[in-house]
Amino acid sequence: MAAINLAQKLATFSAHWQPRVVGQFNGHDLMVVKVKGEFVWHQHDDTDDFFLVLSGRMTIRMHEGDVTLGPGEVFVVPKGVPHCPVAEEEAHLLLIEPTGTPNTGDASTAAPRRVI
Amino acid sequence: MAAINLAQKLATFSAHWQPRVVGQFNGHDLMVVKVKGEFVWHQHDDTDDFFLVLSGRMTIRMHEGDVTLGPGEVFVVPKGVPHCPVAEEEAHLLLIEPTGTPNTGDASTAAPRRVI
Repeated sequence: MAAINLAQKLATFSAHWQPRVVGQFNGHDLMVVKVKGEFVWHQHDDTDDFFLVLSGRMTIRMHEGDVTLGPGEVFVVPKGVPHCPVAEEEAHLLLIEPTGTPNTGDASTAAPRRVI
Repeated sequence: MAAINLAQKLATFSAHWQPRVVGQFNGHDLMVVKVKGEFVWHQHDDTDDFFLVLSGRMTIRMHEGDVTLGPGEVFVVPKGVPHCPVAEEEAHLLLIEPTGTPNTGDASTAAPRRVI
């Protein structure tokens, strides 16, 4: 049993929009991800979507309005709400989703879930 | 819908070992807490226990060994594992637990769950 150092985990890869699983909690994956540019509009019908910005800034576009997050800021996209994450510059995030949730909301287009 | 700034939430109170609910995620409370000194040995039989250190340092004592966490480090105490959080100096944490989980593992001794 050891601490999970999020910055050390993030230093092991460089790809954008490719979450890495770093731990588990109550049936959820704890994941770190590097983001830059614009992701796809998607929604998760069965789960909320937890975002914590560790470094950089990102915006979560939603039809109801955009939310911009900086370091130490959290936003939870309620389940069923369409959203599109975007980041002008690279940002690093902690994500929490039920194990197996496709990151695009669709298993056919999702990034593989990799454990580091 | 707005970002949750964890440092701003932490600036609104000073008591130790008194978690404040700042958001919700899939039936869990997202909480910030200030800790200093030694908590009580306890366990949660029905849930894992998520700790992320935002500032300062803390140690989670367990019979299997201690885990010390600094800023940006996560540890998940598996359900059923006795643990005792301690911090020599004040540390600030993000905690995630199912809504209603008593922080001492026992409703009769738990801190009230306050939303800010």
